[in-house]
Amino acid sequence: MPQSIAANPILVEATRGDMVESFHRGRYVVMTSDGTVVDQGGDIDALMYPRSAIKPLLAIPFVESGAVEAFGLEDKHIALACSSHNGEEEHAQTVKAWLEKIGLSVDTLECAPHYSLSLNAAIKQASDHVSLTKAHNNCSGKHSGFLSTAQQLGEDPSGYIEESHPVQQRLIKVLEEMGDCDLSSTPRGIDGCGIPVIGMRLRDLGLAMARMADPAGLDAKRIDAIKRIRKGCANAPFMVAGTGRFCTGIMEECGENALVKVGAEGVYCAAFPKQGLGVALKIDDGTQRGAEVAMGAILRKHGVIDDAKAEVLKKYLTPVLTNWAGKYAGDLRPAF
Amino acid sequence: MPQSIAANPILVEATRGDMVESFHRGRYVVMTSDGTVVDQGGDIDALMYPRSAIKPLLAIPFVESGAVEAFGLEDKHIALACSSHNGEEEHAQTVKAWLEKIGLSVDTLECAPHYSLSLNAAIKQASDHVSLTKAHNNCSGKHSGFLSTAQQLGEDPSGYIEESHPVQQRLIKVLEEMGDCDLSSTPRGIDGCGIPVIGMRLRDLGLAMARMADPAGLDAKRIDAIKRIRKGCANAPFMVAGTGRFCTGIMEECGENALVKVGAEGVYCAAFPKQGLGVALKIDDGTQRGAEVAMGAILRKHGVIDDAKAEVLKKYLTPVLTNWAGKYAGDLRPAF
Repeated sequence: MPQSIAANPILVEATRGDMVESFHRGRYVVMTSDGTVVDQGGDIDALMYPRSAIKPLLAIPFVESGAVEAFGLEDKHIALACSSHNGEEEHAQTVKAWLEKIGLSVDTLECAPHYSLSLNAAIKQASDHVSLTKAHNNCSGKHSGFLSTAQQLGEDPSGYIEESHPVQQRLIKVLEEMGDCDLSSTPRGIDGCGIPVIGMRLRDLGLAMARMADPAGLDAKRIDAIKRIRKGCANAPFMVAGTGRFCTGIMEECGENALVKVGAEGVYCAAFPKQGLGVALKIDDGTQRGAEVAMGAILRKHGVIDDAKAEVLKKYLTPVLTNWAGKYAGDLRPAF
Repeated sequence: MPQSIAANPILVEATRGDMVESFHRGRYVVMTSDGTVVDQGGDIDALMYPRSAIKPLLAIPFVESGAVEAFGLEDKHIALACSSHNGEEEHAQTVKAWLEKIGLSVDTLECAPHYSLSLNAAIKQASDHVSLTKAHNNCSGKHSGFLSTAQQLGEDPSGYIEESHPVQQRLIKVLEEMGDCDLSSTPRGIDGCGIPVIGMRLRDLGLAMARMADPAGLDAKRIDAIKRIRKGCANAPFMVAGTGRFCTGIMEECGENALVKVGAEGVYCAAFPKQGLGVALKIDDGTQRGAEVAMGAILRKHGVIDDAKAEVLKKYLTPVLTNWAGKYAGDLRPAF
């Protein structure tokens, strides 16, 4: 990477006592569904990997396939399809029961077990001597959505994480349609759960999310799917993330007004249906704390979180840093 | 923080598949003990909090006090005084026995218990249902050094974490002497373990570390203390950090040629006695992965780690990023 590239702006600061100790640079875009950029920072035309922040977009083929009705699935399953969950027992057990409902099992999942990415949840798993399964992988709900789609469409689920599989081809097509972009030759990598990650311009991801917020003009089936996904997440926000998590906390308070979804390496996406706005952001350094506080500032700035809600959500918007004895040490705060 | 400040250079990149996904900016200085800057990047005159990276400097009063000889302490205790340890049982038990040796107990520690900062060690603690004590705090060895000094000098240990206590006053004086700087009115904050953190210019910290590498010209007692500290860490590198940790891995391989010490929020310090060089670095965003890979590059660049050693230390110098199934996904690599 050339040293001379223009630096993205500082979006978040970490203070300690009398000074700013660390800070996070990044780039973000807030757009309407006609492609108008309403707000931005940094280089929005550079590529990024959307990681798990696009799970609500990846749930579109699942809902469009008719799998939800065919298998008698509910809000909680749609929320899990959009989730990066904590692997708490409610998440893992719901995934297990879901896979049985569609005639498969946890063994069919092609993601690997891991301790929760939430330290508190991981400590509980270890303390309880939980036997970790593939259902505990934070992406197991997304994978269950993929498998439900394949089952519904009569496709062999084997190898569903490979780019050549119809499941992945369908996902890339949806991203291209929603982001109005060509992803045939953008960079590729693999995600933590084994599926391909597809390089995408931040601006195109912002447009895709704007269309999640305001799908008017898309075909009727897609509009229905998008509304169903928004409703599912709003009605089961615990399933999207879990105890103590930003996504869950924001959606519990904001309901359908804020579909927010984190991704690895400092990515966040959001759709604000009332405002008709889509958001995509990427923190340069990949830190989750940077991405969360930046997303909180965007939620505030664009009127999704008012003063009263901000008070309730303070621990997510401007987290306090404490020492191990619980004494105040500093804050994380937006810088834009 | 003004948006217009000049950006520090990119020091470390995280790749995934075909592209650089995230990157870490920062600043570093490599100096000789006469104050000559041999190598640098970014703003070395800006303030930073040295955090735990200065523990080898903070051990100077402990060794100079004569506590090591008076209480029959060994290399492992000196290494613990310089440590941010994993809270593995060998760390916690050694701290406990040390405090009993000086007529105190774990209860005298004024730091709070916490699960290990190493995820693997924390998982083991939870799984083993370890009853966490203050001795498990990653700074408990440093605190035991403070308490040993107070005991040796006949000072009331109570309140030893407060800036007004003789223990802390002595530490600030050592930092001023070693860094040839005035810290009387620089910013203050509190550290994770409760002691004050003192704002310091990166350049001054680099000088202090250069004098750890090449103390010639300092008074005889200080020279002896510095050599004792370097020897203690080199002989007991496990006690400085623990299983799987960068500091321990580098010192196990390099011995006295590299005293390296991590601090929170992306800080690293080092002393290379053979080259007579001191190093201070701070990653802007505070990430440990950025600080470790940047320090690895400096160890390579300045001849402390040769090609043969680099092969052995590869997992620390350029860590591979894998997915949850263990499949290669990308790398962390230096960019300077």
